[in-house]
Amino acid sequence: MIKTKIGIVGYGNLGRGVEKGIKLCADMELVGIFTRRDPKNIDSDSPVYNINEILEFKDKIDVLILCGGSANDIPEQAPILAKDFNTVDSFDNHKFIPQYYKKMDEIAKNNENVSVISSGWDPGLFSINRILSEAILPDGENYTFWGKGVSQGHSDAIRRIEGVKSAIQYTIPNQDMIDDIGSGKDVEYESHNAHKRDCYVVLEEGYDEDQIRESIVNMPEYFAGYETTVNFINQDEFDKNHRGMPHGGQVIRRGYTSDENLALYKFSLELGSNPEFTASVNIAYARACHRLALEKKYGAYTVIDIAPIYLSPKSDEEIRKMI
Amino acid sequence: MIKTKIGIVGYGNLGRGVEKGIKLCADMELVGIFTRRDPKNIDSDSPVYNINEILEFKDKIDVLILCGGSANDIPEQAPILAKDFNTVDSFDNHKFIPQYYKKMDEIAKNNENVSVISSGWDPGLFSINRILSEAILPDGENYTFWGKGVSQGHSDAIRRIEGVKSAIQYTIPNQDMIDDIGSGKDVEYESHNAHKRDCYVVLEEGYDEDQIRESIVNMPEYFAGYETTVNFINQDEFDKNHRGMPHGGQVIRRGYTSDENLALYKFSLELGSNPEFTASVNIAYARACHRLALEKKYGAYTVIDIAPIYLSPKSDEEIRKMI
Repeated sequence: MIKTKIGIVGYGNLGRGVEKGIKLCADMELVGIFTRRDPKNIDSDSPVYNINEILEFKDKIDVLILCGGSANDIPEQAPILAKDFNTVDSFDNHKFIPQYYKKMDEIAKNNENVSVISSGWDPGLFSINRILSEAILPDGENYTFWGKGVSQGHSDAIRRIEGVKSAIQYTIPNQDMIDDIGSGKDVEYESHNAHKRDCYVVLEEGYDEDQIRESIVNMPEYFAGYETTVNFINQDEFDKNHRGMPHGGQVIRRGYTSDENLALYKFSLELGSNPEFTASVNIAYARACHRLALEKKYGAYTVIDIAPIYLSPKSDEEIRKMI
Repeated sequence: MIKTKIGIVGYGNLGRGVEKGIKLCADMELVGIFTRRDPKNIDSDSPVYNINEILEFKDKIDVLILCGGSANDIPEQAPILAKDFNTVDSFDNHKFIPQYYKKMDEIAKNNENVSVISSGWDPGLFSINRILSEAILPDGENYTFWGKGVSQGHSDAIRRIEGVKSAIQYTIPNQDMIDDIGSGKDVEYESHNAHKRDCYVVLEEGYDEDQIRESIVNMPEYFAGYETTVNFINQDEFDKNHRGMPHGGQVIRRGYTSDENLALYKFSLELGSNPEFTASVNIAYARACHRLALEKKYGAYTVIDIAPIYLSPKSDEEIRKMI
């Protein structure tokens, strides 16, 4: 069994998920967590170092898993770290993936490293299924539904409203539309009619529920145009029932294999913890990343550039028995 | 766009499915159908040739899709044809895949060809999902359910009983068990309690329903141990409602990303026509086969050895925009 030595960069929810996930993998070893904060302030049993020390670990780490955010951290850190390390990230800004790929591919090739970008579930496993299903069923249509799950972006948007103490937003897929797709009925899929939004909000004292509700449901880009429900609750109930980070979703392709015959291809996830599952996907792609580097296949890869066999810790012979 | 010139070997349900599916792919061209029968007796608008003429097409065909049966046709034909052609087959005898892979890999490498073996949905897409989900969620369990769909093997077994004129068997997955898996409950998955069997039978005149029912439900290896329902119907109803070949199924992995959090990974198919969908998968892997051959990556491949990007007719740049 090939052992893969991992470094975690960034210790938020995703970094903690990677730390937990590595413990479930006999072929993985965590060398250390690297943070911009003072290592003394990080609550973890694993070795923790300041990010400035990372180059000292160049020969002790096989793959770095980058656990920062896609808005600022990854675009800044990944191009630098890919010069000295193999990397896996979950850069999730779909629009910028092509140009990010190009940049990382050049750096990784020039420095004889492997960088797996945009791993996770969307982008990630959902991308694989969108592309595979389209290739198999060319006469058809793809539909992606998210939820039921917590959208951090929408929760943050509510929290920015004055008077809001705590808030969480659940994205709920339109089950009627999913059923219609399955039964072959025509649907008009638009993000705003394919999903609705459920909000749970705790107010500071002295603020008016109706006024805050209006601010939420009419918020452009986030809520306007969506069926939105706002539930006001107290802090105790919030802490008791709304501290988890569940998510999930489904990719459906409805295609025709001939004029008479419908084929329904469906991939779905129901996740108790979104960051822990994303971490689990990143760990599997870290395994692939290490192997590609051992085979000197340098450059950048997205999930669709990697054969499934690279993700499994089993030997080729063992895997072929599972086919 | 790379054009792929296809030859079909064998013209049963699967071969007809490939013929239909190619028409949906702008990058595919059908060169001909090759059969052991007299081409004059084949009802098709496509060019049809006797299998003995196939070597004359060595330079006119990029990939042969082998559409014979796994019991006798493929084990006999594939090793011979892989000497002169790139091939795709849907060899589905799981137990023999490792040794079949080894044999085909040697032949394909020695003759500088590419052979994709055991394409389809199970083995095939289901294998990909069993292996991917296990790699991502090491602390978990895989469950495969088949149906609702027609099992040809079980239908054939009923038809071999004296007095049976027509028969079809539908495999039905145990929805209660699927729900229990989803909700985290313990289940005792065994093929015989995870599925039940629904049979529709037309009798010859003068045969006894109760006697035939007993023969079916007690048939060892096929029905004994399963919850089996036998419905006797007349030939008109059979012809009207039971001539299709629907199938489907699902691969579920239930795993834990930490002590607290469950993750449910589910891949499912609902197919109006089993052979047409299997054909559609084979066509996508024929595209991959051709590209691997153009890259001189000779040898045998299963679906898990091929990166998803090889299956799409789109350019790498177009695909990265879909991620």
